[in-house]
Amino acid sequence: MSRQHSFKTFNPLKNTFNPHQFYSDTPLELENKIQLSVVAERVLSETCYEEISFFLLEIKSELIIRKNKISSAYLEETGLSKSRFEQEFARTIFQLDVFAKYISSPEWKKLGHQNEQIGSRFITKKKLPIGPIMVMGASNFPLAYSTIGGDSVAALAARCPVILKAHPYHLKTSLEVFDAILTAISTCNMPKGTFTHVIDQGHDHATTIAKHDSIKGIGFTGSQLGGEAILEHVNSRKYPIPVFAEMGSVNPVFILDIPDLSSTDLAQRITHSVCNDRGQFCTKPGLIFIPNSVEGKNLCALIKNNISTFESGVMLHPNMKEQFELKISTIEKNNKQFIRSDKKEDHHVSNCCLIIHENEYEHQTFLRFEVFGPFVTLVLYDDSNRLENHLADLEGQLTCSFFSDENTIHIPNKPLIQLALKKVGRVIFNDVPTGVTVCKTMQHGGPFPASSDSRFTAVGTDSMNRFIRDVTIQENVN
Amino acid sequence: MSRQHSFKTFNPLKNTFNPHQFYSDTPLELENKIQLSVVAERVLSETCYEEISFFLLEIKSELIIRKNKISSAYLEETGLSKSRFEQEFARTIFQLDVFAKYISSPEWKKLGHQNEQIGSRFITKKKLPIGPIMVMGASNFPLAYSTIGGDSVAALAARCPVILKAHPYHLKTSLEVFDAILTAISTCNMPKGTFTHVIDQGHDHATTIAKHDSIKGIGFTGSQLGGEAILEHVNSRKYPIPVFAEMGSVNPVFILDIPDLSSTDLAQRITHSVCNDRGQFCTKPGLIFIPNSVEGKNLCALIKNNISTFESGVMLHPNMKEQFELKISTIEKNNKQFIRSDKKEDHHVSNCCLIIHENEYEHQTFLRFEVFGPFVTLVLYDDSNRLENHLADLEGQLTCSFFSDENTIHIPNKPLIQLALKKVGRVIFNDVPTGVTVCKTMQHGGPFPASSDSRFTAVGTDSMNRFIRDVTIQENVN
Repeated sequence: MSRQHSFKTFNPLKNTFNPHQFYSDTPLELENKIQLSVVAERVLSETCYEEISFFLLEIKSELIIRKNKISSAYLEETGLSKSRFEQEFARTIFQLDVFAKYISSPEWKKLGHQNEQIGSRFITKKKLPIGPIMVMGASNFPLAYSTIGGDSVAALAARCPVILKAHPYHLKTSLEVFDAILTAISTCNMPKGTFTHVIDQGHDHATTIAKHDSIKGIGFTGSQLGGEAILEHVNSRKYPIPVFAEMGSVNPVFILDIPDLSSTDLAQRITHSVCNDRGQFCTKPGLIFIPNSVEGKNLCALIKNNISTFESGVMLHPNMKEQFELKISTIEKNNKQFIRSDKKEDHHVSNCCLIIHENEYEHQTFLRFEVFGPFVTLVLYDDSNRLENHLADLEGQLTCSFFSDENTIHIPNKPLIQLALKKVGRVIFNDVPTGVTVCKTMQHGGPFPASSDSRFTAVGTDSMNRFIRDVTIQENVN
Repeated sequence: MSRQHSFKTFNPLKNTFNPHQFYSDTPLELENKIQLSVVAERVLSETCYEEISFFLLEIKSELIIRKNKISSAYLEETGLSKSRFEQEFARTIFQLDVFAKYISSPEWKKLGHQNEQIGSRFITKKKLPIGPIMVMGASNFPLAYSTIGGDSVAALAARCPVILKAHPYHLKTSLEVFDAILTAISTCNMPKGTFTHVIDQGHDHATTIAKHDSIKGIGFTGSQLGGEAILEHVNSRKYPIPVFAEMGSVNPVFILDIPDLSSTDLAQRITHSVCNDRGQFCTKPGLIFIPNSVEGKNLCALIKNNISTFESGVMLHPNMKEQFELKISTIEKNNKQFIRSDKKEDHHVSNCCLIIHENEYEHQTFLRFEVFGPFVTLVLYDDSNRLENHLADLEGQLTCSFFSDENTIHIPNKPLIQLALKKVGRVIFNDVPTGVTVCKTMQHGGPFPASSDSRFTAVGTDSMNRFIRDVTIQENVN
């Protein structure tokens, strides 16, 4: 690690490495970056929210100026489409806007200055940042959940310095975004360590940061394996720090009855949710329970057909592709009724689906876990009374969706929905789980392994709470 | 562990064991209690807050009915006075009242049903209990921080079942309180596992519970050693659960200038805060920085004199006494200027104080840590510019107090106070740290080791947030 290690990013569309060389930070460079964030911590905790708000908007402006450069890096490094770039860029800008507005709103001001007089005591509760936060860039949202994605914006809005461990597979994109942030830092006269950018092809630097005394919290989005590794490093620290790891989810969908809207429409929505952008979303539905009726079988056939004909494409990076192929081949080996679409190019992945009866499904426990990519299991069920068992057998989930013809689903009366409320972060009626709204009432998280702490959300303005602590100031009124 | 282990509680005033025999639960009894709480979990999460509120008030009524019985057990097992019992009983009742009112208030209802429409999506955020909580009874508040103390009330108000690991040194008191809870459970027709009471002289059962799959959170108040042991058990779990451990604190006090109120009055308030109830409070001031001036030395002399003549007494239990004597003798050995008051009885402990110059203090790092009992270090400082260093050298604290003559202390202009805000959970002006107000704006916690998660409080209505998670319900508006 003492000599600079060089590496390249990968162009999944061209199936080759990109020309530019990147260099992992040396341990000394890393330590210097951490120290910069310690210096910034002192300044930021005394900076007013209005200034932070202005800073977030300045980042937004600088991103817009660099949109073309960011776009070309994004397209070169991710295998995602131009239209997906447009959507994600818009969401990234929107997130900056939402937080900038929120922290300069009267609502936030009120929350941050609650006070009351109890006897002769005048007591005020103020919100303070917890300190430098490591954010680990996620590969599947190279903008909206990476460099200045949800975790970073939430941490900055909370007035915490961010140490961004850039994702090694979209480093050029990350550096373009970082350049926008650096310019905003300079324009707003913020301390340099407000945002630092750490480069490392492997996991060594993330491990060092996770164990570092000066780090006060971690935001992570990725696999369960990755999240658990971070948790293990943090457990070995002298003192605990909060980790919010958003990890795997199979996002079950229960078709309780085939809704009024035609099956064709429903099949299209489900297929899009499974296959769009190669299903590389944490909220991709991976498990759909469908009645074993004429209508249900018809729906299955439609989905199967749609998946087979849905445009194929490339995965985000070679590791992701390898993981997908590995899991898929295990499932295929165990199920002769497995369906793979034709691929357009050798380096594409197939859209896949498995139609299985609930009795068989029950014996294949690996079908209960996330397969990251364009794959879904359709489980035909005879007995709706067994749905509760199927849901109970799943671990904690980000989402659970229900489709039903009933105009109003009476939540308190449905044990299945009650169980879902206990198992997941978001319960959805008559909609697919993909497409997370960035708003005040969004809960993106859920019981383990959906997230490492179900009390917090990774999306929406409440996600700031991960990085904030309260302090009480007590004075005597005479 | 398979045979029932018997033990007795201790009467510190009489310096003998109490006659009654208690029996540790067998592992099977323990498992049955945990299973009861799993059953209760399902029911409670669907119980409305109004019913929980009524249940808390019912516990209150049942406590009042049993007040005499609870009082006699308390006096027999704790070495605390009748007047302290009255105060603590009143606080326990008050806490039940505060939470009962809060969870049935429009404010809480509003917080628990936030909703908004974003495009065609109608999104609601609801609050749910995280599940069965282990509460570890604290010996120093046999009522207000034990069986139905702050953690238990907060967990119940959040609709979580409580598994109370009773403190083995005040079991009779705990069982009397538990009897009140059981009657309330029956009156309110709550599930039996809403509150279960676990008896164990040692730590085995607490370890089992902390590692148990069905447990979803832990509330602990006690020593840093105890808190770290719990955290270690939890770290070995398959999946993480939140632990709120409120641990040690030396609660530094900075006398910036001798205030207008006479030194005599200040010396009395400080002495009372150090020695009352043998200083067995997590917020006892253990370290007081006093100007090395004529007025400062006068204040020191007054405090020293007050401490010497303050009524002596007994510690809560033999282990506590042993720990105190051990730490005190180490400090005494290193400091010839150490002062011990005369004791009235052999089994009493002395009130102690050490007056030391800042130069000497700096070399005795053990003076920076909590000594649980009637002991304080008075540090005479020459140079107020060094106070920042002294504060920086301390670990995270529950509180930090400042006494100053200035009518208004301009927070943003004082680096020392800015540093305090970063180090502690509560900053106090012109008052002693003991006496924590139970209210909405109270923060009782702080950076490690004051607590294991500085984002939460152990006192006040916000303490419920430790045991609550949000869930989003998303519907389509057509």
